[in-house]
Formats: sequence, C-alpha cells, structure tokens
Amino acid sequence: MEKEKYMAIEAFMLNQAKDSAHDKHHIYRVLNAAVDIAKYENSVDMDILITACLLHDIGRSAQAENPKLCHAKVGAEMAYAFLLEQGWQQEKALHVRDCVSSHRYRGDNLPASIEAKILFDADKLDVSGAVGIARTLIYAGQVCCPLYITGEDGNIVVDRGDSFFREYNYKLKNIYDSFYTARAKEIASTRKKVVEDFYNGLLAEVTENYKNGFKTR
Amino acid sequence: MEKEKYMAIEAFMLNQAKDSAHDKHHIYRVLNAAVDIAKYENSVDMDILITACLLHDIGRSAQAENPKLCHAKVGAEMAYAFLLEQGWQQEKALHVRDCVSSHRYRGDNLPASIEAKILFDADKLDVSGAVGIARTLIYAGQVCCPLYITGEDGNIVVDRGDSFFREYNYKLKNIYDSFYTARAKEIASTRKKVVEDFYNGLLAEVTENYKNGFKTR
Repeated sequence: MEKEKYMAIEAFMLNQAKDSAHDKHHIYRVLNAAVDIAKYENSVDMDILITACLLHDIGRSAQAENPKLCHAKVGAEMAYAFLLEQGWQQEKALHVRDCVSSHRYRGDNLPASIEAKILFDADKLDVSGAVGIARTLIYAGQVCCPLYITGEDGNIVVDRGDSFFREYNYKLKNIYDSFYTARAKEIASTRKKVVEDFYNGLLAEVTENYKNGFKTR
Repeated sequence: MEKEKYMAIEAFMLNQAKDSAHDKHHIYRVLNAAVDIAKYENSVDMDILITACLLHDIGRSAQAENPKLCHAKVGAEMAYAFLLEQGWQQEKALHVRDCVSSHRYRGDNLPASIEAKILFDADKLDVSGAVGIARTLIYAGQVCCPLYITGEDGNIVVDRGDSFFREYNYKLKNIYDSFYTARAKEIASTRKKVVEDFYNGLLAEVTENYKNGFKTR
C-alpha cells in the first residue's frame, strides 16, 4: 500500500484518539508491537494488520459518550465504512472490520485470522507490564475510579467494587495467559515481575499505613 | 477535642474531596501517617495536627476550577474561616491555617511548627512509593496529561513538556530528600526501590517497543 494511503488512515485515527490511556502513543505502541510479532509469523497481510492497528480504538469516543456501546463493535463498523469510502475492496475492508471487532479482552468475539490474533496480542501487550499499570491508572483517573475501596470494617477491599485494585485482580494479573502468539508471550513474560512487585508494594504500603495509624490507637 | 467536633471537621472535608488522586482515602492515609510520625516526636498538639490533616486539601476544587489559584493558600483560608465558625480560638485556627498553607511541595512557604512539618511529611509520603506513582498517574488521567511525549525525531522525551515521565524526574524521584522528620524518611526509604524498578521497567518497555517496531524496518 502507498504511504499516502497509510497517512489518510493515520489522520483519521489521530482525529479520534482523544483520551490519554488510548491516545496516539498507545496506537503507535500497538502498531510497533504488531510489526514485531508479525516478523515471527508466516503469511501475515501487513496492509490489513497495520490498518487494523491504526483503527482499532476509533470507537473509544462513542463508548465514552455512551458506556453501553462496545468500542470494538462500533469501531469495526466505523473502520469498514471509512475504508470503503477510501476505495478499499469489500473483502479487505471486512477483514479489517473483523480484526477490530475481536480485539477486546472482555469481548466474546474471539480473533480468528492471524492478523486479528496479532492485533489482539499487540493490544494486550499494552496492558501488560509497567505500561499496562500506568495506562490502567490513567484510565482510572479519567473515569473517576478510585485506587481502592474500603469495606464497612474500614479495611481495604481488593476483589470487588469498582477500583484499580479490583481491575488488577480481574484483568492485569491474568493477561499473561491470554496471548495467541509465541512472540507476545515472550515479551509479556519479561514484564511480569515489575507488575507483581508494584502491586505487592502498593498493597503493603497502604496496609502498613492503615495499621500504623488510627487503627493501633 | 470531642469526637463530635472531629466528625464535623471530617464531614466538611468529605464534602470537598472530589478527585480520586486527592480523595478521602488520600486524606485518611495522610492522617494515619501523621499519627504514626507524631509518635516519634515530642510535644505535638494532636488537635492541631489531626484537624490540619483533615483539611489540608479542601482548596483542591478551587484550584481545579482556576489553575492559577494555589490550593494550599485557598484551603488555608477556608480552614481558618470554617474553624472560627466552629467556635475555635483564633490562635489555634491560625496555627491550622499555617499548617495547611505550608504543606505544598512546590510552595515557597515552608512549614515552621512541628505540626506543619508532620503534615508536610505525611502528605509527601503519599507521593513516595508505589502509592505516589499510582496517585500521580490517576491525576494525569484526570487532567489529560500523557504518559510521555515524543520529540520531533519520534523519540521519547523524559525531562520536558507536560507528562508523567517529566513529573517523575521533577518530583517523584526527588521526594526522598525532602522530609523533615526521621520517621517519614525511614518509611520513604523502604518505598524507594519499587518506584525506581517501576520507572526503569516502564522506560525499558516503551523504548524496546519503539526499537522493535517501525524504527528497525
């Protein structure tokens, strides 16, 4: 595909990337990771993959305005319509649509093609490691989600309610088992220790703080 | 001071604590840390200290609405007016005012009394460690500050502009030298490694990502 066509797709993406957990830097990291993973796989259609990476989060604004919407589904339809407008063949536009619609961790629509699996893995790599912690906390700030909640006894609750601690225990610590490609697994495995050390350190700090404060008086 | 009086102060604080980086849990952690530090110091007026802890961030909303305002200065005047309304003696209300007005890391108004120094240290402890990283990232999300910015050459910039990476290098990594009390220094020193590991891990992850992506093609 010619550079100008990529630039038109990139410009469309840049116009949608509004929040700092899913900003243009996230898109470029996903694209970089996908290019890296693709080097270890056979018969990858790079036009499909790069386009799907650039467009995978364009449904985020719609979901932010209406949380009942799924950004993967909305974004898939937006990408499909945009690519037809750009003169893409229907078959290839449908392939990109399927990649975008199946990239979500929470979705029940699983990635089928190798391009869809690479996008899924590249996006999930950005939830692994210190970068995954950082993005989850930035997103918590955006949606007014607290670091943790406390129960009626005043103690910290880690496994229920809406908080970063719960998100860690539901998603961040489990992401390492969810990759399709060997390369993504390999990268993620090098990032696991810093994540566990951070979470355990954080939990120890706040637990100590509560213990040494009023609770002991 | 009677429990009812503390509860009136706490209720006033709870009505102001709106953002999740400076929410009620931050206030309680500062209060717990202050109580802990005070056990190692002589002649601490606990009524002053506890009241100053509860009220130290009540100027945050005013600063969020008008970033030219300093939340420490605004909060100090709000606390003073509130305590006089509550029937406090002017001298004690002035003491709380001075604690609140000098708690800010960026301020040029340095803490003078032991209560002011303990509040300063307890508040800075919540910027140290994994909890400091977490709160800074949550705050970045609230004010739409990115994780990092890139320069014209496409490389990551860590020491200028408005980003988490810059905030780490300006404030988070330097907080360990800014404590007044031995107890706060001791607690902070146990939290330093997790912070350095997290930042170094994060920087390595994103640097590797850029290196293994388009840049090598």
